[in-house]
Amino acid sequence: MKSFLHLHDQDDATIRALLCSAAAIERAPISDALKGRILGLVFLNPSLRTLASFQAGMAQLGGSSFVITPGQGTWALETRDGVVMDGAAAEHVREAVPVLCQYADALGVRCFAGGADLNLDLTEPVLSAFARHATKPLVNMESALDHPCQALADWKTMDDLDIPQSGRFVLSWAWHPKALPYAVPSAALSMAARRGMKVTVLRPEGYALPAAVMERAREQAARSGGCVRETSDRAAALDGAHVLYAKSWQAEAHYGRPESEAALRAPLRDWCVAESWFETARKDAVFMHCLPVRRNVKVKDEVLDGPRSRVIRQAGNRLHAQKAVLLHMLETQ
Amino acid sequence: MKSFLHLHDQDDATIRALLCSAAAIERAPISDALKGRILGLVFLNPSLRTLASFQAGMAQLGGSSFVITPGQGTWALETRDGVVMDGAAAEHVREAVPVLCQYADALGVRCFAGGADLNLDLTEPVLSAFARHATKPLVNMESALDHPCQALADWKTMDDLDIPQSGRFVLSWAWHPKALPYAVPSAALSMAARRGMKVTVLRPEGYALPAAVMERAREQAARSGGCVRETSDRAAALDGAHVLYAKSWQAEAHYGRPESEAALRAPLRDWCVAESWFETARKDAVFMHCLPVRRNVKVKDEVLDGPRSRVIRQAGNRLHAQKAVLLHMLETQ
Amino acid sequence: MKSFLHLHDQDDATIRALLCSAAAIERAPISDALKGRILGLVFLNPSLRTLASFQAGMAQLGGSSFVITPGQGTWALETRDGVVMDGAAAEHVREAVPVLCQYADALGVRCFAGGADLNLDLTEPVLSAFARHATKPLVNMESALDHPCQALADWKTMDDLDIPQSGRFVLSWAWHPKALPYAVPSAALSMAARRGMKVTVLRPEGYALPAAVMERAREQAARSGGCVRETSDRAAALDGAHVLYAKSWQAEAHYGRPESEAALRAPLRDWCVAESWFETARKDAVFMHCLPVRRNVKVKDEVLDGPRSRVIRQAGNRLHAQKAVLLHMLETQ
Repeated sequence: MKSFLHLHDQDDATIRALLCSAAAIERAPISDALKGRILGLVFLNPSLRTLASFQAGMAQLGGSSFVITPGQGTWALETRDGVVMDGAAAEHVREAVPVLCQYADALGVRCFAGGADLNLDLTEPVLSAFARHATKPLVNMESALDHPCQALADWKTMDDLDIPQSGRFVLSWAWHPKALPYAVPSAALSMAARRGMKVTVLRPEGYALPAAVMERAREQAARSGGCVRETSDRAAALDGAHVLYAKSWQAEAHYGRPESEAALRAPLRDWCVAESWFETARKDAVFMHCLPVRRNVKVKDEVLDGPRSRVIRQAGNRLHAQKAVLLHMLETQ
Repeated sequence: MKSFLHLHDQDDATIRALLCSAAAIERAPISDALKGRILGLVFLNPSLRTLASFQAGMAQLGGSSFVITPGQGTWALETRDGVVMDGAAAEHVREAVPVLCQYADALGVRCFAGGADLNLDLTEPVLSAFARHATKPLVNMESALDHPCQALADWKTMDDLDIPQSGRFVLSWAWHPKALPYAVPSAALSMAARRGMKVTVLRPEGYALPAAVMERAREQAARSGGCVRETSDRAAALDGAHVLYAKSWQAEAHYGRPESEAALRAPLRDWCVAESWFETARKDAVFMHCLPVRRNVKVKDEVLDGPRSRVIRQAGNRLHAQKAVLLHMLETQ
Repeated sequence: MKSFLHLHDQDDATIRALLCSAAAIERAPISDALKGRILGLVFLNPSLRTLASFQAGMAQLGGSSFVITPGQGTWALETRDGVVMDGAAAEHVREAVPVLCQYADALGVRCFAGGADLNLDLTEPVLSAFARHATKPLVNMESALDHPCQALADWKTMDDLDIPQSGRFVLSWAWHPKALPYAVPSAALSMAARRGMKVTVLRPEGYALPAAVMERAREQAARSGGCVRETSDRAAALDGAHVLYAKSWQAEAHYGRPESEAALRAPLRDWCVAESWFETARKDAVFMHCLPVRRNVKVKDEVLDGPRSRVIRQAGNRLHAQKAVLLHMLETQ
């Protein structure tokens, strides 16, 4: 069984094979490779791209999919072991996951961070509970600390754009009305580092990413010859940059306390990416974002509608990258 | 790219071809014509017939579909340009629509009227935003002012029933507990006028359809040799009628003010279609309604369960008509 | 048209054929037997196994399915005849069911008990309204008083485990924080009786199943040579038992009054199945439950995670049993 829970724990050959397969799939999207195969999609959190691209991807490969939404069409699921289940959750993943694995050839799960306790979220409690009880390959469709399908699509996007492996990649914090989790910044940071890029995390004071996240990125950089640094100096960060990748995330010191976090965040509304940010960057520097994006809050219209934006292509590559992952998991079973 | 946003802007040859194709599909419903093709369905409002018939239709043509429900399984979408998105909407259609178009061969969208500002709703702000940003064919699954798939199915239903092109078609207002939009009455009125029928809008005082709606219908009548008049005299309206098509809609003068509209509507509960309404009509006059219908509120059981009702056939024709639209849009790409 | 509303009204040959077909499907799950066929799934209540297994099952047979969720993506449906529909329900099953039957080759419906009036619920008002208006085969995906797909899967599970037809089957009440309906206990009881088993209903005082439920089970036992008794003596009930099947249900005397029912139920929290319950049972006695199950409330972890539990296999057999039902209904049309 080959699951796809993270990108950072894949070996180089697998990553190369996935990117190569994704490019081939983009050229020839329709086949019967997964005829008769079923993908079960479990959404503990909302989705647009992920739902649509996984369902479309399975169909284009000749297979099919079903969608389970705990807390909406399905009751809430318990993930903690040993609990007396007299609360809201009517079913435990110890039953739900092996049961769904009997109806599907692979499962996908979306399970955002709980957001109350960082140390708990760093252990990926829900994703790891699903992984522990899955009897079929499991895909991470965004978890507490990772979004590997997005990361693989982003890697492909930079390859498509001929951005050098050793290019300069800036992951920038951006303002957002809510305290957001670390999944996408962690995934993007780690992916760029693993690609061998010169990565800079640009963020205001108080918004350093958790040590565990930075450490994972540095390990990835060490495998590939890349490097990772961080700064709050915008002009310095973007100097010679090939890519500005924007994302919002919450302040670690206020984790689980959204009100005090909001007070820290309040004066930072000028962290809305504008064309002026690119002054010191390369002329052909591109703007990337995983979507959804709040216009004129995180990024100005002038950037999203301008020639630098690659956000639509990134999202398009979700389809191709995920189909490569599905084939990798299911074709050789 | 051929979208299907309205019926009234199709040329005569296209309408004839769609009706002919729908009839052929009804006789031979299953094929592989759309094998490997994907339809993305975006529901900003609830649905029964539309969801089921589009999903069934794609499957019967060998294709597949996915469903996106903003505000439910997906966050709310912004459609206005230039907005600072710090409210409920987490994503703009400027991203969402081109992204979904990368995962699908065509999109459908259901986007009812906002209901606050008639002049705004008359511009079809959501449908036109989808149309502006779609890079694949787009189907209108009911918008602020139109429901062309219903209209095409209704046209086919009258053809099936051998109702003459120059027959008498009465669109009647009916009571309903809520202030309803103009989409279905506009679509039915315009369709019957375009079919060449003698159309009468029957409604109580204060419930004249907006001038723009009437004008569109008159333009359609002018193209086909039909005519459009309006009255509040039930017996006169139904004199010699072939079809009574019932629908509720709100009073224009109270648009966006449901409480004052409700006061105007309160004394009109006898606008519930009964068998007695057909006294002056043709003996074989039929009753039509787009569904859903509130029994004994808009129409009495005696009509819906009696020999005049064609509402089930209308709904059945949704499937055939929409499959014809899908083939028209996708087969020749 | 062959519907599948209950197991108890099927003849012996049909039950044998379904079990035989389910076993064959388990060995060869993928075919094109239902290519081009559509299953419409109407969920008036939430689901995990049922949704996933019906959608996966249709896909594995080469067909497709769509999902309608009244009250969620679709408006509420009225089922009572003659009603003035000025409440929440916007559409009557008199329209909705024949309409959906035009888009599908078969329908499934999930419609739990109303829970207010036992005499009404015993008439299966919603299921029978669907059955009355369906023009295509209808599958009961759990109704007020029955869950025949679960019962068929449970029968297969006991066959798989070589549990003798004349073995001892104990249906035990278990504690639950809510007053639950009689569908699963009725279905399991009736199924075990029909299989020819020596059935004991084990329940605390006040929790006898309704007379109509017991009577149906006794009729089934009479057809097969089984027997049905009831007791509140746990050790006696389980003496020599092959199977302990746990389920919670409400007290008949308090039907429709959850607060007074809760008071009766409050002191019964020790009705949580534990390993110690099996002391007088056969050494190889198995534990069965339809799922979802609240761990450490209805059943202790030690049982669910121990060697007696067959709950995952039961759920797996839902897929095979339902595919047999679908083939039985649709292949010979």
